[in-house]
Amino acid sequence: MITLYHHPLCAHSRFVRLLLGEYGIEPQLIEENVHERRRDFLILDPAGQTPVLVEHPSTVVPGPSTIAEYFDETRGLALGKHRLLPEDPLSRIEVRRLMDWFGQKFFREVTDWLVTEKVYKRFMPRERGGGAPDMELVRAARSNIRTHMRYVSYLAGSRKWLAGDRLSYADLAAAAQLSCVDFLGDVPWEEYETAKLWYSRVKSRPAFRSLLADRLPGLSPAPVYADLDF
Amino acid sequence: MITLYHHPLCAHSRFVRLLLGEYGIEPQLIEENVHERRRDFLILDPAGQTPVLVEHPSTVVPGPSTIAEYFDETRGLALGKHRLLPEDPLSRIEVRRLMDWFGQKFFREVTDWLVTEKVYKRFMPRERGGGAPDMELVRAARSNIRTHMRYVSYLAGSRKWLAGDRLSYADLAAAAQLSCVDFLGDVPWEEYETAKLWYSRVKSRPAFRSLLADRLPGLSPAPVYADLDF
Repeated sequence: MITLYHHPLCAHSRFVRLLLGEYGIEPQLIEENVHERRRDFLILDPAGQTPVLVEHPSTVVPGPSTIAEYFDETRGLALGKHRLLPEDPLSRIEVRRLMDWFGQKFFREVTDWLVTEKVYKRFMPRERGGGAPDMELVRAARSNIRTHMRYVSYLAGSRKWLAGDRLSYADLAAAAQLSCVDFLGDVPWEEYETAKLWYSRVKSRPAFRSLLADRLPGLSPAPVYADLDF
Repeated sequence: MITLYHHPLCAHSRFVRLLLGEYGIEPQLIEENVHERRRDFLILDPAGQTPVLVEHPSTVVPGPSTIAEYFDETRGLALGKHRLLPEDPLSRIEVRRLMDWFGQKFFREVTDWLVTEKVYKRFMPRERGGGAPDMELVRAARSNIRTHMRYVSYLAGSRKWLAGDRLSYADLAAAAQLSCVDFLGDVPWEEYETAKLWYSRVKSRPAFRSLLADRLPGLSPAPVYADLDF
């Protein structure tokens, strides 16, 4: 059995949920508010960040890329030609490069600011940084996302999937970030038709369903969030 | 032939230099100031970050973890029992967890602030963020490093190397970060004897030599930086 400590708007957790869906695994989901620094969670993973995956009885796998590598190493061959980290070294470089691009660069320049300012700060006590959103950071993120949308359009326009001929971790990493921003209504889809067509293909996959059902108390997703014909 | 685009105080580049040293590879080093956003470098890697490794004629490998995985996949077996990413899945989780810990968490909480404030801002034009160091960030980094030193001491005190019985990427990732901070004289070695003993073992390895010879114009390393009996 697999348990995933996650948060609905943690993009890294969403990446792992998509990945598990593609492996055909339905995890037990435990929602973790990392800002609370819960003692039992810190014992599980001293870094105190979601996602943390537990494969029972006792294998603890923290962090999105370590989880992705672990699943490729233990279950990748079973996916055959649908393997999410392709076999040859050059394709693996490209998939990992894009995992870093979206999981680190896009996250740092877009998702982190939007989710922290618009959502997390509502639920955090003032002495730990909670309060009203810093609109300057929100505007910076909304400006930065355009560079990334152009890049997604470029990749999706020159390849079948973002890293090549096959769906890979790269698509899941990009879609995970975008789905968080889309929940908040901050993706300018109308200006990036090629990126939108690629995203609608990822969004239609069965692995995506549980993400589209995510709700947070007091926070409704943007109207097109769960719409497959957005 | 292998070329590495790096910067002497880029901790991620230092990790790759240590790794190459352990594989017995002496790369051609090209110093890259990423703040200049040089066109040819951005063509090589649109993320525009060091390190970027080129294996001639045409394999471009960007980013520390992608480089580490690439070398394990293409040359790991040749290292035999000295393989830097051990073979069994559980040990690989632990090594990757610690690579993330030092390469991301330690970097974000310590190295990035110290190097940016004390070094990079000197060489950057004012309109791109250059200027005097923000001493509040320097103090925060000097406070944060203590948590990490305790963690290194704990790991080094309970295992032979940071991730287990053998030297691994985890040791190189931790030493790379610490070596940058040590260059600036901001590691409180005297308070963390166990961490110091572990570091002196890594620092004595032949792979470390080129790091100890690093100099920057107008910036001398701290007195103990290159001293093996610090």
